[in-house]
Amino acid sequence: MFINGCVFLTSDLTMFEKEVLVDPKEYVRIDHKLLRFWVTEIFVSLGLRSEDAEVISDVLVTADLMGISSHGVQRVKRYVDGIKVGAVNPKPEIKVVERGATALVDGDNGLGHPTSVKAMALAIAKAESYGIGISLVRRSHHFGIAGYYALKAVDKGFIGVSMTNSEALVSYVNSLGRFLGTNPLAVAVPTPTPPPILFDAATSIVPVGKVEIYAKLGREIPEGWVIDSEGNYLKGNASEVLKAIKNHRASILPLGGLGEEFGGHKGSGLSLVIDIISGILSGAAWGPHVGYTTVKEANVGHAFIALNIEFFMDKNTFYERISKYIKEIKELKKHPKAYKVWIPGEKSWLTMETRKKLGIPIHKNVLKELIEISKEQHLEIPLSLDL
Amino acid sequence: MFINGCVFLTSDLTMFEKEVLVDPKEYVRIDHKLLRFWVTEIFVSLGLRSEDAEVISDVLVTADLMGISSHGVQRVKRYVDGIKVGAVNPKPEIKVVERGATALVDGDNGLGHPTSVKAMALAIAKAESYGIGISLVRRSHHFGIAGYYALKAVDKGFIGVSMTNSEALVSYVNSLGRFLGTNPLAVAVPTPTPPPILFDAATSIVPVGKVEIYAKLGREIPEGWVIDSEGNYLKGNASEVLKAIKNHRASILPLGGLGEEFGGHKGSGLSLVIDIISGILSGAAWGPHVGYTTVKEANVGHAFIALNIEFFMDKNTFYERISKYIKEIKELKKHPKAYKVWIPGEKSWLTMETRKKLGIPIHKNVLKELIEISKEQHLEIPLSLDL
Repeated sequence: MFINGCVFLTSDLTMFEKEVLVDPKEYVRIDHKLLRFWVTEIFVSLGLRSEDAEVISDVLVTADLMGISSHGVQRVKRYVDGIKVGAVNPKPEIKVVERGATALVDGDNGLGHPTSVKAMALAIAKAESYGIGISLVRRSHHFGIAGYYALKAVDKGFIGVSMTNSEALVSYVNSLGRFLGTNPLAVAVPTPTPPPILFDAATSIVPVGKVEIYAKLGREIPEGWVIDSEGNYLKGNASEVLKAIKNHRASILPLGGLGEEFGGHKGSGLSLVIDIISGILSGAAWGPHVGYTTVKEANVGHAFIALNIEFFMDKNTFYERISKYIKEIKELKKHPKAYKVWIPGEKSWLTMETRKKLGIPIHKNVLKELIEISKEQHLEIPLSLDL
Repeated sequence: MFINGCVFLTSDLTMFEKEVLVDPKEYVRIDHKLLRFWVTEIFVSLGLRSEDAEVISDVLVTADLMGISSHGVQRVKRYVDGIKVGAVNPKPEIKVVERGATALVDGDNGLGHPTSVKAMALAIAKAESYGIGISLVRRSHHFGIAGYYALKAVDKGFIGVSMTNSEALVSYVNSLGRFLGTNPLAVAVPTPTPPPILFDAATSIVPVGKVEIYAKLGREIPEGWVIDSEGNYLKGNASEVLKAIKNHRASILPLGGLGEEFGGHKGSGLSLVIDIISGILSGAAWGPHVGYTTVKEANVGHAFIALNIEFFMDKNTFYERISKYIKEIKELKKHPKAYKVWIPGEKSWLTMETRKKLGIPIHKNVLKELIEISKEQHLEIPLSLDL
């Protein structure tokens, strides 16, 4: 059941999903615990420590639970390939230099997720002592969804911020070609009752995952997302647009779009400062030098900040104030074209609730990849499917 | 001389201005030192401490030097009115509570500028000791351009961040009406040679100052900046659009525009988290509760962060890396419709260089206001003009 772009699985509107499934017959709903177990086993079989494999699996499955399948278990094959070709270190020795309220983390070329969980834990520990803490990470790889780490701060009752640079796919304002990453920023804020506020956004007009999803759905890319190598809008067939981006014949526009009239300088400026903090200042790669996981040491940089609310006001006062703010947003008059007014993170949260009950819809092609990898690794496949 | 929206005062392109002057005959170029002196005198005559008056004057004149006249001395009358009606405390007793790497500042209802300079100085001092420092401010008023304070950190060789909430003029994504401020974010980054990088952007698609400038220029507002109270685009005559915003019959859209297709949820989410940190967590007002300086205690909230580069790498290494990054941006192939590829803050810097030499073009109406105020305050007018 569709209402203004929202998907409800039941007519009473209790089962919400933020993702549109192309063709529901192409998907199988898998229990999230089973999926978590399965993906962990795969990474352990590749030589990762079990605690690291568990973290990677949890980040990926959480993305799937939240309806961000572009960052979910469909990434397993990419990471596995990276490990197999030697671009990723399966057993990194993470090094940390702590000083004052800061920590500098060298990820030793491992996958980004375990390093990032450690880095955010350091930022939280600093914020416990000093009110604010920051960790910068270098020599890392893709870390999955930025919001996962910001939410780790919320688990401690803190405000969490996470950001990362990433493979260059986005054009810098007024220029041509792929130069900036989609460099996302996430900010998570605790609330007295779930869901917490979770702002998590690429600084590009859309993440590349959205173009991939449009390609799978056979949808048309609207004018204003992508430009070709001459600077003209590239729209229409999403598979063609995606191919052009991959072949460096096109680039995604920054948030705010082409030029400066609607703020393209703001999106690309925001992306630039995220890159300066997480890439330049950490000692990682930046801009077009950030590598791709299956090819070489990516040297991705991340930054994590935790902010201790109780250094500024008591927790109950904060909770009262944030609850009033949320209530005021919820009472706003909605735009006639919108289904409802959402708090950042609310759609992901509702999707998670739905998928915890019904299972996560995983595309059959992704399941085939996981089965293939499991066979190669001589692992037992934990479910029997007729794909 | 105009080249793709850029203004050059000389044919050799050395005298750059980012602002288009409606009708140059309507402006008089005033020496920035004289203007600074004059505005300081005005605020001293209204009972402000001379050191506070100097700061306010410097922030306003710096905005004019940078070509951001919406935040320049044209604001003097507004602040003066606020003081005269008793909405602003001319002699605030600023209170500071320091703890760890944080400071919480109560502005005692003074103008935002002196309080903000003190708050950023506290954040810098914290960053000297701990690597990072944060100050939150409550019970403040409008602080002028966010970038001014971020640049204070750059003066010390640090990365500076400043943000503030502001009068509600912007609609929250998927909703109608003025609810969020234009809540700007500024990040300043030191470079080995000027200009420093200065990202300074409202989280709305345009700042209200841009609509005001379009009204003065008699230009048309394009579709996509503003919606009316039914959610339809409001475009065309800028004076009419501005009037509709002021009368609560229209609102500015967040960065990313209407709905979610081009990222309106990103702009409004960013604005929301800036409001949570600078408004909710500081103990200031938030969203529609932020007041207007000429009416009542505004209770504006600000946040300032300083980041000590040397906690992460030695300064020379940082300078080498950031210089390479800037060089790479400058070498990008420009979009055919753009005049050139700019670094954030570069246009403002060049405008400042021009205006330091030639004087700041101040509109005659603004000069008349300053003269009027000076007469009321029985001040000598430091220049003779035939307006």
